[in-house]
Amino acid sequence: MHGGDIYRNQVTLDFSVNINPLGMPESVRQALRDAVEDCTCYPDERQEALRAAIGAWEGVPSDWVLCGNGASELFPAIVRGLRPKRILIPVPSFLGYEKAAKAWDADLRFYEMKAEKGFRLDEGILPLLTKDLSLVFLANPNNPVGNRIAPDLLEQVLVRCREQGIAVILDECFLGLTEQDGSRSYFPRLEEFPRLFVVSAFTKLFAIPGVRLGYLGCGDPQLRDIVEAQLPEWNLSVFAQRAGAAAVGERGYCRRSRSLIAQERAYLAEGLGRLGIQVYPSETNFLLFYTEVPLAKELLERGILIRDCENFRGLKKGYYRAAIRQRAEQDRLLAEIGAIICR
Amino acid sequence: MHGGDIYRNQVTLDFSVNINPLGMPESVRQALRDAVEDCTCYPDERQEALRAAIGAWEGVPSDWVLCGNGASELFPAIVRGLRPKRILIPVPSFLGYEKAAKAWDADLRFYEMKAEKGFRLDEGILPLLTKDLSLVFLANPNNPVGNRIAPDLLEQVLVRCREQGIAVILDECFLGLTEQDGSRSYFPRLEEFPRLFVVSAFTKLFAIPGVRLGYLGCGDPQLRDIVEAQLPEWNLSVFAQRAGAAAVGERGYCRRSRSLIAQERAYLAEGLGRLGIQVYPSETNFLLFYTEVPLAKELLERGILIRDCENFRGLKKGYYRAAIRQRAEQDRLLAEIGAIICR
Repeated sequence: MHGGDIYRNQVTLDFSVNINPLGMPESVRQALRDAVEDCTCYPDERQEALRAAIGAWEGVPSDWVLCGNGASELFPAIVRGLRPKRILIPVPSFLGYEKAAKAWDADLRFYEMKAEKGFRLDEGILPLLTKDLSLVFLANPNNPVGNRIAPDLLEQVLVRCREQGIAVILDECFLGLTEQDGSRSYFPRLEEFPRLFVVSAFTKLFAIPGVRLGYLGCGDPQLRDIVEAQLPEWNLSVFAQRAGAAAVGERGYCRRSRSLIAQERAYLAEGLGRLGIQVYPSETNFLLFYTEVPLAKELLERGILIRDCENFRGLKKGYYRAAIRQRAEQDRLLAEIGAIICR
Repeated sequence: MHGGDIYRNQVTLDFSVNINPLGMPESVRQALRDAVEDCTCYPDERQEALRAAIGAWEGVPSDWVLCGNGASELFPAIVRGLRPKRILIPVPSFLGYEKAAKAWDADLRFYEMKAEKGFRLDEGILPLLTKDLSLVFLANPNNPVGNRIAPDLLEQVLVRCREQGIAVILDECFLGLTEQDGSRSYFPRLEEFPRLFVVSAFTKLFAIPGVRLGYLGCGDPQLRDIVEAQLPEWNLSVFAQRAGAAAVGERGYCRRSRSLIAQERAYLAEGLGRLGIQVYPSETNFLLFYTEVPLAKELLERGILIRDCENFRGLKKGYYRAAIRQRAEQDRLLAEIGAIICR
C-alpha cells in the first residue's frame, strides 16, 4: 500500500520513502545507542521530557503536545476521539488519511485537486466547508505532490472551519524540510484555532522512520483529553523518547538539510525535465512526476525503488514519486530513467 | 495509574514493575544495538520475520499472529474491532482491561473475585456467560495476584463462551514466567476456539518494557482482519521487530528465569509471612500481599518502589504488589519492611 517495501524487494537505492538525505544526526544515533540499556524500564508514560522538548521546539506549552507511535497512530486516534459525522479529504494525498478516516463510520468525501492546477488546493474547497462537515484533513506540504497550500487560502480555510465548527487536521510532517521551514507553521497559532490539530513527526526530518515518533499540538484541553484517551498506555518507546529529546538540539542539521534539499530538488527536477518527463512543482524533499513510459518495475529490476503513485486516489497510471537524495544517487536515478526512456 | 513511575520518584530499587529478574538476554541487547543503524528505514509493515518467529515460538501459523506496540495497544484494538454490546471483567485485574473496554461504548460489568478465595476465579462466573454478553477478559496468570485459573474451570469458561458466541481475550503475558510455562497456553488450541484472542508480550519475559512488543493469536481470519484494521501502519518499530526475532532463540534463558523466579518467590513469600504479612499464592514473578501497616510511601522514602494496589477495582487500602527480584534485592526489601513494621 505504501512505499518503502525494501523487505520484499531487492533494493539498493530507495527513492520511495521521503527521508532526509543527510541521514540520522549523530546525536540522535548516540541517544538511540544509549537507550538500549534503559529498555529494561518502562518508558515514561507521561513523556514529560519529550513533550517539553517538542513544546520548546514548536513554541507551544508542553501540555499542548501529545505524542504518537508515528503520526500514523495520531490520525485515527483524532478521528475516533472526535467521532465525526462527515469527513473531507482533498486528494491526491497521503493514503493514511483515508485509512484513519475509516476508523470511524463517517460519511467520507473527497475534494479532487486537478492535474492542470498542479494538484494544488484551490478556492473550490471553500463552499464545501459547511456546518454538516465535522473534520477536514489538510497537508502542508501535501504528499505525494510536495506543494504547499497558498498561505492566504490556508488561512481562509482555517478561519472558515473555525466559523463553522469544523475540526481540522493539518499535517506538517514535511514542513521542516521546506525552505521556509517553520515560518508558516500553525503550531504557534493553535490558540487562535481551538479545533485545529497540527500533526508532525520526526520520522522524515531526522531520518528515523524505524523509531516511530509523531506528535500533535492542540490548544483545546478538552479535545486533547479526548484524543489522549484513544492512545494506548506507554505508546512511545524508550527509543522514541530519547531520540526526540536529542533531535531538538539539531537546528543546524535542519538548516543544512533544507539547503541541500532545495539544491538537489532543483537538480533532479531539471534532470527529469530534460528527459521529457513532466515534473510537478514541489517545495519539499520529494517530486511527483508523470510519464507514459513505465518506470517502476523497470527501475526495480535495476535495484532502484520509486513510488508508483497509481494507487493514490485522484492520480492514475504514469504518476511516480521520488525522494530527493544525494547528488551521486540522483545521477544514478537519472541515468537509469534515461536508459529506460531511450531504449 | 500504573506502577513503574521511576520518572517522578527517586527510586533505587523498583519492585513495582513485574520484569524478569534475570534482565535482558544478551542476544536481545545485541539485536537492539544492531537495529540502531536500520532506523533510517521504515520497519517492515507486514512484520513478516517477527510474525514467523512468534508463530514458531507459540506453535501457530505466522498469519494467526498480530503484533502490537505492547499488549496495551492490542486490548483496545480488539475491543474496537469487535464493537461489543456488553463486556465482563473479573476483578481485581490489570487496569488496562478497563481502559481498553472503555474504547467502545459497551455496557461494562465486573465479576468480583473474593479475598477469602484468594482472588481466584471461581464457578460463580459461569452463570454470567450468557448470550447477551459479547466479550470477557481473562488473565492467566492474573495480575496483581499472580494466581492461575484452575485448568478445568478455564476450559469450562472457554467452552461455554464458545457455545454462547462470546469472544474471549485471554491474557497470557505472565504465563511464560510460571513454572509450568506454556504447557497450559491456549495458543496451540486457537483453532478450537475461533472467538478466542490469546494475548501475550515479550515485555516481562525478556525484560524489555521500554521496547514495546506485544502480540495476539486468533484462529479466525475474519476476526484477525477486523482487529488488524484497528492498528496503525508501521505500529512496530525496527527495535521491536529485531528484539522479538532474537528473543525466540532464548529458551534456555526462559527455563533459568522460571527456576529462579520459583525459588525467589518462595523466599520472598516466606520472608513477608515471617513479618506477619498476609501473602496471596502466586505462580508467577510477583506477589500480592496485605498489611495494615502503611508501606508504599515509607519504602519510597528509602528509595524502594512497590505497587500500591489501592486503586485496583476490587482491592482496597493495604494491598501491595512486589515483583520477584534477585536475592540481595529481596533481602533489602524485607529488611526495610521489617524496619517499618517493627518501629
